[in-house]
Amino acid sequence: FNQLMCLWITVWEEENFQGKRCEFMLECQNIMERGFAKIRSIKVENGPWVGYEYPEFQGQQFILEKGDYPRYEAWSGNSSYRTEHMLSFRPIKCANHSDSKVTLYECEDFQGRKFEMCDDYPSLQAMGWCSKEVPSIKVNSGAWVAYQFPGYRGYQYILERDRHQGDYRNYNEFSTQAHTNQVQSIRRIQH
Amino acid sequence: FNQLMCLWITVWEEENFQGKRCEFMLECQNIMERGFAKIRSIKVENGPWVGYEYPEFQGQQFILEKGDYPRYEAWSGNSSYRTEHMLSFRPIKCANHSDSKVTLYECEDFQGRKFEMCDDYPSLQAMGWCSKEVPSIKVNSGAWVAYQFPGYRGYQYILERDRHQGDYRNYNEFSTQAHTNQVQSIRRIQH
Repeated sequence: FNQLMCLWITVWEEENFQGKRCEFMLECQNIMERGFAKIRSIKVENGPWVGYEYPEFQGQQFILEKGDYPRYEAWSGNSSYRTEHMLSFRPIKCANHSDSKVTLYECEDFQGRKFEMCDDYPSLQAMGWCSKEVPSIKVNSGAWVAYQFPGYRGYQYILERDRHQGDYRNYNEFSTQAHTNQVQSIRRIQH
Repeated sequence: FNQLMCLWITVWEEENFQGKRCEFMLECQNIMERGFAKIRSIKVENGPWVGYEYPEFQGQQFILEKGDYPRYEAWSGNSSYRTEHMLSFRPIKCANHSDSKVTLYECEDFQGRKFEMCDDYPSLQAMGWCSKEVPSIKVNSGAWVAYQFPGYRGYQYILERDRHQGDYRNYNEFSTQAHTNQVQSIRRIQH
């Protein structure tokens, strides 16, 4: 019960926390079933959560940590993509910050050279990763968010120990609908 | 000399690293003086650097860490603002990752309660900061980037020990041209 009390998100149909509102402490598979045409602002009272472009956790992904998101641009981080939907969302279970670990592999199916990480990297290339792509990823513990561009920008990909046993064998498995195979930064998701 | 060799940025006039190009190992006050109409793609071979919307380090700020930025959206992170200029840039000096420290203050001019930080915070509210604003900031060591929204999204504000002695007495001093006084996430800038 205490754990449930910890999770709490409020969504509004209009920007700047106006109009119809709805509060959630559990996942929402399709906000349209609550009579919403769209979500245009969000407050996360306790998180983290992950939002999705389409119902049933499909499409572009958005990490939502505690704080205020007064309009679409605040959670998207990707300005070239103009759909502006967020129609489903769910809480994420993460490890203690110091226990998070992820392994990046040079090739698909966990082949080739690997790199184990326990910290945040705003630039994978600065840490010695030679490519703009990460072909496969194993989440050993916790939850992570990978990004298309350096400095935590562009498309976001949520990676969790508790989904697919943490195994992402190729970019189709983490990049929902395969928007891109580029990963240039990665960080832990914190409570 | 070795330190100079470490810094290297290449800019192109067209997207995806096409068209006229220019390499820099030192600051550039105005790319238009090199005959560029615009910068449309960037590779950072070694960083970090900070880009600015206008000549002479004015206007919106962009943190540029090692990696590829094939178009404006890759470095902007702010999709509601459509100017798409980056006309000057300079390298940033940062501390060792573990030595970085910053102090946030509840009021302007370093008044009120304070909070000392040595780590990255994707959500200041999750760590206990009660407001969406940070009225004044002192950089004790290293260089940091503060963001308008949680999860390192929205406007970016570069904060350095080596500028203004690390003192930012009100949001006009860190938010160039005062786009907003909101700060909801902050992180260290790494080599």
